[in-house]
Amino acid sequence: MDYLIICGTNRKNSKSKKISQFYQGLLEKKGIASQLIDLAGLPDDYIASALYENAGKNASFQPFRDQMKVARKMVFVVAEYNGSFPGVLKAFIDGMEYPGTFKNKKAALIGLSSGVQGGGLALSHLTDILNYCGTHVLAQKPKLSHIEKNFVKGQFTNPFYVQLLEEQIDEFIDF
Amino acid sequence: MDYLIICGTNRKNSKSKKISQFYQGLLEKKGIASQLIDLAGLPDDYIASALYENAGKNASFQPFRDQMKVARKMVFVVAEYNGSFPGVLKAFIDGMEYPGTFKNKKAALIGLSSGVQGGGLALSHLTDILNYCGTHVLAQKPKLSHIEKNFVKGQFTNPFYVQLLEEQIDEFIDF
Amino acid sequence: MDYLIICGTNRKNSKSKKISQFYQGLLEKKGIASQLIDLAGLPDDYIASALYENAGKNASFQPFRDQMKVARKMVFVVAEYNGSFPGVLKAFIDGMEYPGTFKNKKAALIGLSSGVQGGGLALSHLTDILNYCGTHVLAQKPKLSHIEKNFVKGQFTNPFYVQLLEEQIDEFIDF
Amino acid sequence: MDYLIICGTNRKNSKSKKISQFYQGLLEKKGIASQLIDLAGLPDDYIASALYENAGKNASFQPFRDQMKVARKMVFVVAEYNGSFPGVLKAFIDGMEYPGTFKNKKAALIGLSSGVQGGGLALSHLTDILNYCGTHVLAQKPKLSHIEKNFVKGQFTNPFYVQLLEEQIDEFIDF
Repeated sequence: MDYLIICGTNRKNSKSKKISQFYQGLLEKKGIASQLIDLAGLPDDYIASALYENAGKNASFQPFRDQMKVARKMVFVVAEYNGSFPGVLKAFIDGMEYPGTFKNKKAALIGLSSGVQGGGLALSHLTDILNYCGTHVLAQKPKLSHIEKNFVKGQFTNPFYVQLLEEQIDEFIDF
Repeated sequence: MDYLIICGTNRKNSKSKKISQFYQGLLEKKGIASQLIDLAGLPDDYIASALYENAGKNASFQPFRDQMKVARKMVFVVAEYNGSFPGVLKAFIDGMEYPGTFKNKKAALIGLSSGVQGGGLALSHLTDILNYCGTHVLAQKPKLSHIEKNFVKGQFTNPFYVQLLEEQIDEFIDF
Repeated sequence: MDYLIICGTNRKNSKSKKISQFYQGLLEKKGIASQLIDLAGLPDDYIASALYENAGKNASFQPFRDQMKVARKMVFVVAEYNGSFPGVLKAFIDGMEYPGTFKNKKAALIGLSSGVQGGGLALSHLTDILNYCGTHVLAQKPKLSHIEKNFVKGQFTNPFYVQLLEEQIDEFIDF
Repeated sequence: MDYLIICGTNRKNSKSKKISQFYQGLLEKKGIASQLIDLAGLPDDYIASALYENAGKNASFQPFRDQMKVARKMVFVVAEYNGSFPGVLKAFIDGMEYPGTFKNKKAALIGLSSGVQGGGLALSHLTDILNYCGTHVLAQKPKLSHIEKNFVKGQFTNPFYVQLLEEQIDEFIDF
């Protein structure tokens, strides 16, 4: 299973989760199976039990690490929090096995926001981090703004956004 | 108490902590009292109990929020992790009261790294975030590289780095 | 004359120029006199005659350098080109006297774009550069999107944008 | 001729030029022919004659546009100026045919600096711009610091830097 979608927040029942599932459906229509990680499933004591000298020692976190390690193509669904991505997403990356998890892999990024920016800075920051870790990032990074209006009950009300995601997938398959 | 130093990692006994304490000493020499927050003191279940719908509900985290809210000048000591700042630092920011914690305040940033960069990108990302939240960032941001060699047993072996920090403090006082 | 507005493109009759003039009017209403530099006035051979070993040698560029040097508060009006600011604006900065032009000065940034982003990344990049040069940047950076629709015949059709600019000025005066 | 190296400054006899030539030699050893653009060859009146309403009208600039348009893999050699890349490099990008020049192409970036940073922020900014224009950027971006000491008379005195460049080329070939 090459493709892994990461829902980049641990907020319960997040928009990011629903958009991750929608994206999984789009991949499926193109014949691509994928798995989905939701950071809402992180252990409650993640920051105390799975980082630094404890890296790799939390058994309940190990499945996340394993999934990330075997994935070849990663899709990050990234909500804008405070002008960047959720801190939990970076903490998640900080808990990975290094450098095997990221070296010479490929990533596609999708930003979303309640406001107008669509996570533009969040995606720039995440690109810096993934590049540093050795992961190549697809140039096309859809920025989905006003997400409460544009994505309702699991579906996009804005067909242009679906088109952007489908174009991204087409390019990511060849990337 | 206007000045608050934030040790921006939850790693135990971190270099960031020791440098935060050193910085506190430098402030003291200039007659400035300050407080120090160490993210190592975050509740173990921070990401599950203090964010989003739980923001402001974790009693053991409340003192952190209160300290941040009353501070007028914040000093962030930021280790480079994976090409940016520790995810825990951003998660900490995500748990603050918004916008009262950051609006029209002042911040000074210090980067440190084991490698050569001194956290340059980390400080750029953090500047974006603080600016978004309404905090003005001092232009001078010392980037302390090869920190294991340059900071030993609580003291800098590189006098130039002490000079950079002292110059930063002089400018931060007037900022 | 402390305040200097920089129209950050050399395009003739640019939106940036008209918005710079509008901003100058807002400053004036608050009792603040300012000067305005339009990069459309750069010498045609600027990149060949005023950079590197020729820095400071182009007599027709000297007035720009002098104005920048004496300004204490700089306002940059920055159109989004190719996901950042116009290259000419950075080339302009590259031709300044260093470090006297920027050290310990203050800047306010305004972004504008035909598209939806309002120059978010442009302002982030420019903040990095100004901070590097020693200039403190005001946190509040209005991002004005869909500028062709929102600014017509020298006036904003979107009153919220005027409010953002006025709030920025109030904060910049105290910065 | 798929590979094109862009010497990203118009400074005469620049280090960037010499490193571009060295890089061309490394490519050649691996059996890859390449062309080299030196921005020192830009028309003196480039900013007045080749941008905006004049885009595509300057006959002496046309060969640059043609080379960029047909290249499939671009190598940018980027000196750090004022905390980012040279403004002239962005002005060069602003003069390209859009979006044909950049859409779905590949780029490799090399940073260099007199100081310690090696152009880290310059490469981050350029990645944002190239991604915006549709060009995928290789994750591995060597940052070559203290370049006056590490690169002398057309050769690297620091063998680690040669190794970094060779590794980059190996990855770029497969990218």
